[in-house]
Amino acid sequence: MTQLIDVPPGLKGVAVANTSVGDVRGAEGFYHYRQYDASTLARERTFEEAWHLMHAGELPDPGQLAEFTRLTASRRALPPRVVAALPAVAAVSSMSDSPLQSLRAAYELVALDQRMTTWLDITDEDLAGQALTTVAVFPTLVAALYRLARGQQPVAPRTDLGHAANYLYMLEGTEPDSARARALETYLITTIDHGFSASTFTSRVVTSAGADLGSAVIAALGALSGPLHGGAPARVLDMLDEIGTPDRAGAWIRAALARGDVIMGFGHPVYRTNDPRDTLLRQVARDTGSARLALAETVVDSALTAFREVKPGVPIHVNVEFYAAVVLEAVGLPRPLFTPTFAVSRVVGWAAHILEQARNNKIIRPVARYTGPEPVTGA
Amino acid sequence: MTQLIDVPPGLKGVAVANTSVGDVRGAEGFYHYRQYDASTLARERTFEEAWHLMHAGELPDPGQLAEFTRLTASRRALPPRVVAALPAVAAVSSMSDSPLQSLRAAYELVALDQRMTTWLDITDEDLAGQALTTVAVFPTLVAALYRLARGQQPVAPRTDLGHAANYLYMLEGTEPDSARARALETYLITTIDHGFSASTFTSRVVTSAGADLGSAVIAALGALSGPLHGGAPARVLDMLDEIGTPDRAGAWIRAALARGDVIMGFGHPVYRTNDPRDTLLRQVARDTGSARLALAETVVDSALTAFREVKPGVPIHVNVEFYAAVVLEAVGLPRPLFTPTFAVSRVVGWAAHILEQARNNKIIRPVARYTGPEPVTGA
Repeated sequence: MTQLIDVPPGLKGVAVANTSVGDVRGAEGFYHYRQYDASTLARERTFEEAWHLMHAGELPDPGQLAEFTRLTASRRALPPRVVAALPAVAAVSSMSDSPLQSLRAAYELVALDQRMTTWLDITDEDLAGQALTTVAVFPTLVAALYRLARGQQPVAPRTDLGHAANYLYMLEGTEPDSARARALETYLITTIDHGFSASTFTSRVVTSAGADLGSAVIAALGALSGPLHGGAPARVLDMLDEIGTPDRAGAWIRAALARGDVIMGFGHPVYRTNDPRDTLLRQVARDTGSARLALAETVVDSALTAFREVKPGVPIHVNVEFYAAVVLEAVGLPRPLFTPTFAVSRVVGWAAHILEQARNNKIIRPVARYTGPEPVTGA
Repeated sequence: MTQLIDVPPGLKGVAVANTSVGDVRGAEGFYHYRQYDASTLARERTFEEAWHLMHAGELPDPGQLAEFTRLTASRRALPPRVVAALPAVAAVSSMSDSPLQSLRAAYELVALDQRMTTWLDITDEDLAGQALTTVAVFPTLVAALYRLARGQQPVAPRTDLGHAANYLYMLEGTEPDSARARALETYLITTIDHGFSASTFTSRVVTSAGADLGSAVIAALGALSGPLHGGAPARVLDMLDEIGTPDRAGAWIRAALARGDVIMGFGHPVYRTNDPRDTLLRQVARDTGSARLALAETVVDSALTAFREVKPGVPIHVNVEFYAAVVLEAVGLPRPLFTPTFAVSRVVGWAAHILEQARNNKIIRPVARYTGPEPVTGA
């Protein structure tokens, strides 16, 4: 019998890889992309700058940024065969019931069209190019699927707008005002990466087997669709709708806790203090002048008070989903697009992790402990 | 700084879960499904019996087998919306260049059509039903894509044939003789499960996040497409083609080893003795009367002799791919269908692991060790 190595359930706390992509310091309420404070990047930088940082490992100088912006904008348009096939996918899929799966099916067509193949057989430059194309087309796919689901024609991307502004443009068909585009851009930068979440880990496992970049991204989209992964801010708005008005918040929260319900938008497995993304997105929500803000802030106060009553000594904080929901609504995104929009951001992180895994690969292949009946040799 | 738990690279030897699905005893050259010797099952049982064993945890009695056979056969047909959308997928995909990705894109349509949703929100019975439907449609999807790629109309499944025979029927449009169907069936049973391969592990990681069964299967298909996962027997035939005749085998192998090339079909990370699947499939290859057999056996003898010369003391054995390739060719499958056919079998194992993970879930979420430059707080 081979000796097995025992570790905590779910690999909790187990370091499966080295990374220079970024990290989360839960105890400090701090997370970073490469060596930069992510919150500061979200406040002060463009999406393209943060994307370049994750992709190339460093912030771009003005010349690099101009070149990167030009290159990535040129890759937003979908290949003609994908444009032709997309209505068939939209006819089977449902952007309201399974938006991430719809995005995944559409992205699959891009990966097929590009003949993405094992990174073992292509140059690092080609793999990096696939990563850029993947990130570049995500907003185009989401917008096209959304419009097709509503019986509208997709809107072709523009190359003269930033990543966030162009996304809104493709959804709506008109150029968004800059405040709205900037609020979305801040959200997108905020959620690019966050440690070894289940989706990020999945992308690295698939890459470690030598699979192509498309396969890794597709697998990660699946993991992201799992409710235990988190990342479903639309449920926060459903809750706010149900509560209705600030004066009802306290009673509603206490009743929900008494029933044993989970309150959406609170708690995180990593942070033991305020989620730094909360602080930032709360400010962005204020800047948008969201009509939801008064209700949202009252619900937060009521919930934190109720948690202290019900579970004294257990620190529970607002998490990224709560104000992300308020921001995304204020930006004008419909709820079914909340998780696909999260994917539009997070795919930057996945791509950086996939490149890192491929550049220093070791197949991730654990074992299991067989606990069934002792096998017999005759069947 | 949180304390991280260090483990061997790639989680080698690390037990990430308990399982009663099956196990591999590498030192003994033995593997089993549930508590039954897999080789014996492959020799003596039908695919439906082995599938029932993996799915339900026990071999069926005659009544259960009849009911299971009827139920699964009734799920082979594709939903009308998938039939309608498949030509669009086939137009973008390539069964010769990226067969697993094509299968994945097609299966994605089934998952979308079925509105597969997180297992957290459905009953165990419904999840098990999704598992059966998934396994049931895989041959139908592969056959339809293959025929569409050749400009042929897909052939609808028959419910009166076994899983393997119906697969050949849908590919060829005529009922296969029983010896050919049985050879394929034996291969399919042989490759249903084999420990925590990268694809199986991937399916459990995605499931652990709460994602739907379709997402887990799609992710596993991506991992399976990685060359480091193994499972590409077509490359063995390419090698046999290149060698050409038995008298050239010795010189060809020695020249390849001198160049440092990998010889296809030899070596396995787990087995330290004969791969039990080799012994079985070699016999099946003999039974088919394959014209390749003389060449194949000479190549094996020459390779093993050469390995002993070049790497004395390092035991290298034939692995499952070698005679799997000979069997699949003898059965009449074209090479681009070798890995999709592997998937037709392995999806039974994935489904069993997905059900097991969902029934006793703990999210699989490891961490990484940040090794980049020390972060700064100003960007």
